[in-house]
Amino acid sequence: MVLLDGKKISNDIKNEIAEQVKKMKSRGEKVPHLAAIIVGNDGASLTYVASKVKACERVGFDSTLIRMPNTTSEIELLDKIEELNLNPDIDGFIIQLPLPKQINTQKVLLAVNPEKDVDGFHPTNFGKMALDMSTFIPATPFGILELLDRYGVETQGKHTVVIGRSHIVGRPMSILMGRKGFPGNSTVTLTHSHTKNITQITSQADIIISALGVPNFLKAEMVKDDAVVIDVGITRVIDETNEKGYYITGDVDFENVSKKASFITPVPGGVGPMTIAMLLKNTLLARERQN
Amino acid sequence: MVLLDGKKISNDIKNEIAEQVKKMKSRGEKVPHLAAIIVGNDGASLTYVASKVKACERVGFDSTLIRMPNTTSEIELLDKIEELNLNPDIDGFIIQLPLPKQINTQKVLLAVNPEKDVDGFHPTNFGKMALDMSTFIPATPFGILELLDRYGVETQGKHTVVIGRSHIVGRPMSILMGRKGFPGNSTVTLTHSHTKNITQITSQADIIISALGVPNFLKAEMVKDDAVVIDVGITRVIDETNEKGYYITGDVDFENVSKKASFITPVPGGVGPMTIAMLLKNTLLARERQN
Repeated sequence: MVLLDGKKISNDIKNEIAEQVKKMKSRGEKVPHLAAIIVGNDGASLTYVASKVKACERVGFDSTLIRMPNTTSEIELLDKIEELNLNPDIDGFIIQLPLPKQINTQKVLLAVNPEKDVDGFHPTNFGKMALDMSTFIPATPFGILELLDRYGVETQGKHTVVIGRSHIVGRPMSILMGRKGFPGNSTVTLTHSHTKNITQITSQADIIISALGVPNFLKAEMVKDDAVVIDVGITRVIDETNEKGYYITGDVDFENVSKKASFITPVPGGVGPMTIAMLLKNTLLARERQN
Repeated sequence: MVLLDGKKISNDIKNEIAEQVKKMKSRGEKVPHLAAIIVGNDGASLTYVASKVKACERVGFDSTLIRMPNTTSEIELLDKIEELNLNPDIDGFIIQLPLPKQINTQKVLLAVNPEKDVDGFHPTNFGKMALDMSTFIPATPFGILELLDRYGVETQGKHTVVIGRSHIVGRPMSILMGRKGFPGNSTVTLTHSHTKNITQITSQADIIISALGVPNFLKAEMVKDDAVVIDVGITRVIDETNEKGYYITGDVDFENVSKKASFITPVPGGVGPMTIAMLLKNTLLARERQN
């Protein structure tokens, strides 16, 4: 069994990006600049955004954090987005989700200039991805592709089963694994809450990508020998014996599934750290496209 | 076994659209106007476009056919597209494919205003479809959904296997069958040229949608009892005993598969006629959105 070490790979990627930024600087070029908008005071969201800003510093990007109050109106947020769309110094920006209830998330995501949409959430970018065109791939799916690629996991002709059809992970992952190229060319089955006989389906899979958010969902008896198992679930479980008051767990019964798998991602330290690395990669790409 | 009669259903839809156009006229409203651009002299393309124009007449739409020579440059075609984008009298337009070699198809499809893209081929519309937003669904997949809907074929919780990953049928169909709603909520497997053990996969399917273009590909032993079989393949087979010199056949060994299927589309007269009906439906939708 090989552990797909997202912590290590994401560090490698950050080092590679930092190297490229150094070269940009030495050539007197503008370095990539990522902006993030956060509305409100949600603790987890603040933590995520802070780690994105920190990652920018680490690789030498410029970064801007825009905090807006929980009472921000849709119009105020749309105005801010338009400002970033028009600001030539900003190469890419993200809007941290979820947004407060008075704001229509779909409308907000549609307002982002697709060329600065480094989260890859705009329909134009999502459509380009589905139509095999060059675009920004959403960071978490992009991170999974990168992990498979760097560990040389064969995907062509394999049967990939994706669990969960979210817009952020499951749906794009199901599209990406079936596209032409590598990683890709898989036969892909997308499963979700209406799927019957899930065990029958997962136990045929060469590659399982679980993005459900249900701790211990994927058990050993659902997985065939030598399967590749990618765990995208991140659930905080309350644990008073832990000093944080919680621990992080994935969808996979790691202890038992890891005994059967050929490759498996741990949680934490698997897919999670890849997400930020690929956000940086998309921002670098956005900067390069401007040149 | 129930025959999914696309000829009948497409006629019903055209009658319904004609009814709506009559009402628009009686209210003094502008009627939908579809334009089609065709470049070159390909016989099959000319036939398709002619039948689209004829269908417009039948339902009371205005239509414009724009013929451009085979030597048309990319710039000339892009100029024509911009003209149609800006012409307020045109509600929707299509560019008949394939295009001559000197023209980049991707660039051309990207130039169409998404709000007039009644073929649903623009990445923005394709992305909206994949993200469950309201949009123009490509006509052939839209026609299949409509057939399933009108015959009340249950899709929720069923296992749908799609054969072929083209941008026009297989890929969008795989997305649509797995979306929330009806028809949808299927567990979907997308298969293609790299798929191994295709028989093992198709024989588990409750619904099979074949869009491969290989005559007699889907045989009875690949289909389980009571499966729903949708044949999107259209191949012209040379036949000198026939006065046209050819006959049309699908992907499915109809004679034998129809004995096992619960519902099945014939070829011709199944999915084919639905495509033009749904193009009209999208054009009507484009007109209504302008109001």
